[in-house]
Amino acid sequence: MPHTLRRLDGRALLVDPAPVAMVWNEPGRPHDALAVPGLTLGPGDALIEVELATVCGSDLHTVRGDRSAETPLVLGHEAVGRVVAAGERAVRSDGTRLELGDRVVWSVTASCGSCDRCARGLPQKCRTLAKYGHARIVRGWELSGGFATHVQLREGTAIVPVGEALPASVAAPASCATATAVAALDAAAGRVPLAGATVVVAGAGMVGLSVAALADDVGATVVVSDPDPGRRAFALRFGAVAVADPSAPTESDASLRGVLDRLSRSGVDAPLVAVEASGSPAAVRQAIDAVDVGGVVVLVGSVFPGPDVAISPESLIRRLVTVQGVHNYAPHHLEEAVAALHRLRRTRPFDEFVGATFSLAELDTAIEAAASGAHVRVGIAPQRRRHA
Amino acid sequence: MPHTLRRLDGRALLVDPAPVAMVWNEPGRPHDALAVPGLTLGPGDALIEVELATVCGSDLHTVRGDRSAETPLVLGHEAVGRVVAAGERAVRSDGTRLELGDRVVWSVTASCGSCDRCARGLPQKCRTLAKYGHARIVRGWELSGGFATHVQLREGTAIVPVGEALPASVAAPASCATATAVAALDAAAGRVPLAGATVVVAGAGMVGLSVAALADDVGATVVVSDPDPGRRAFALRFGAVAVADPSAPTESDASLRGVLDRLSRSGVDAPLVAVEASGSPAAVRQAIDAVDVGGVVVLVGSVFPGPDVAISPESLIRRLVTVQGVHNYAPHHLEEAVAALHRLRRTRPFDEFVGATFSLAELDTAIEAAASGAHVRVGIAPQRRRHA
Repeated sequence: MPHTLRRLDGRALLVDPAPVAMVWNEPGRPHDALAVPGLTLGPGDALIEVELATVCGSDLHTVRGDRSAETPLVLGHEAVGRVVAAGERAVRSDGTRLELGDRVVWSVTASCGSCDRCARGLPQKCRTLAKYGHARIVRGWELSGGFATHVQLREGTAIVPVGEALPASVAAPASCATATAVAALDAAAGRVPLAGATVVVAGAGMVGLSVAALADDVGATVVVSDPDPGRRAFALRFGAVAVADPSAPTESDASLRGVLDRLSRSGVDAPLVAVEASGSPAAVRQAIDAVDVGGVVVLVGSVFPGPDVAISPESLIRRLVTVQGVHNYAPHHLEEAVAALHRLRRTRPFDEFVGATFSLAELDTAIEAAASGAHVRVGIAPQRRRHA
Repeated sequence: MPHTLRRLDGRALLVDPAPVAMVWNEPGRPHDALAVPGLTLGPGDALIEVELATVCGSDLHTVRGDRSAETPLVLGHEAVGRVVAAGERAVRSDGTRLELGDRVVWSVTASCGSCDRCARGLPQKCRTLAKYGHARIVRGWELSGGFATHVQLREGTAIVPVGEALPASVAAPASCATATAVAALDAAAGRVPLAGATVVVAGAGMVGLSVAALADDVGATVVVSDPDPGRRAFALRFGAVAVADPSAPTESDASLRGVLDRLSRSGVDAPLVAVEASGSPAAVRQAIDAVDVGGVVVLVGSVFPGPDVAISPESLIRRLVTVQGVHNYAPHHLEEAVAALHRLRRTRPFDEFVGATFSLAELDTAIEAAASGAHVRVGIAPQRRRHA
């Protein structure tokens, strides 16, 4: 490891060379590099040297100003890295002691574990929640996002080890896109057995493609809808048996309705599950209309302000349809996401999500590349320049 | 019993005096009386002499022309009666043999028990569904609704005995309003433990008031919202700790928001459950807005065409809210409804729902009385004239 760590009195830690975090202030302004030479590790905290962070769609929404954020902040909440320092009470999500050198991913959220929401199984909505890559910088927790050489993990974070053989580009998005995909399917599976069910996925971004692969893996018949032909082609490699174009006229064969009608003629059941992962209001409506009697629609894509969607209460009632919002996930979803990635990367091209990788100094360029839509994900390798 | 039954060859049955069903044809036209002297009972069928039928809100919607119906038909799907003839395979919902003289209520739906939807626990959406009080008259099943001296129950109907001491006015609505209320709370309980939860009920009609009593019975804190002061007063007697006026300005103390804020200041949790039983689009929106993070909104009221409701997908996602449509119910819900009525009628004024009772010949007058809104329910006692 290229860094030397020196413990001062108590819990203070001096790192040399100093960790660097990229600070975002406002739309249109380049990131500022912030050096954080000293930090204080709590007994449940850990310091992670970031191997790779990936740029999530919600980072782009923030940078564009499409969602409000308290600034200055360090963005980035999809990352993989290695433990370089740990408090004496720092643990993995399974409760075992966190070891120096562990290669890990970690939950987007850090939760108290004892408030009413944590008790109700909603740690992602903890009353004293902290979120990586979303928090305004405060003195003592500057290393709070993935777009940095190091991240300081806090007690209450689900820290999940990943195998050395798992490519960093596959592991990094686990803590957001993959775990959210697991949570979305978990919500659906609470109402409808997925094995043998037809599952519609709207949006072939990272979450949607992960949902496709996971649903196919448990025996569902997967149909993916996305306006981009390249994404549709990708979806077929992630387990979709058919793809639809949501921008095609409803009566056309290429529309979701057309594709489902064609599948129905060859004996495929009507969908009982729809996962809306695009955030498009029209797709939300299509997803609600697509499911059969007793079906469930999981909404995960609309995580930025957008227009309301008109729904028919009567139609929901007569079809006994459930519409369920899912945001972030619980620790076990991240554990399942990591396990799934180890398993599915052999059969599904999870290693093709990251289309380009940049150094930390190139973060603004990387975000532009991510915004271009040319890649599902763009990576940031914070150690790259030093290693070069 | 005032009727004599004579078995002809095979399964044919002659009843004297002839059963009479009231046939509805179209809005604005009075009912026609249809005499049905002979009928054929299948091996799983039963003939019921109706003791009391009640006029449901959905009967009113049909009579007004607010919902489409294939006519001519016999309305009425809330009733209690006595078994006067039964096929050799006719059974109660618990599988025991149906006995002559059993006093019973029965499900709105008759299901095959073997199609994919029955197998998925949705018998109310059976592929070969028959519904009492909703089916166009066909030769051989003229006695298909409760507004008649007799109803012919078909195999696949959940037939549930009721105690002799249960007033007919309490028993009759079990098969629609009470069982639907049980199903609505069952849907909510699948996501949120009701004991200790705050439950908002929109609409203090028969379903809403039943939900209030049932939720209070299992330890929930119940708040009922209804624009009618009389209904609000009634709701307090059905277990509501507070009532709100949905037509009051949002910022007023009388609004749902105002009432919930006041309760919050005295330590009552934010609602985790809202049951929308009014069918008002504004109330659907209020119910969705009312629930806290992780909450569930059960829609049961919007069973007639109405305007769409604008929802925010982002708000559902960030609050992890579930919106679930419930229509009709499964057999066990009717069994639970009957058990609950036996128990709760001692503490809750279920015997005040039926505010007036008419003879079968007065059906059109009865429906006018029901439409006036002066009573929660209006009763039809089909044997009354003969008994008088």
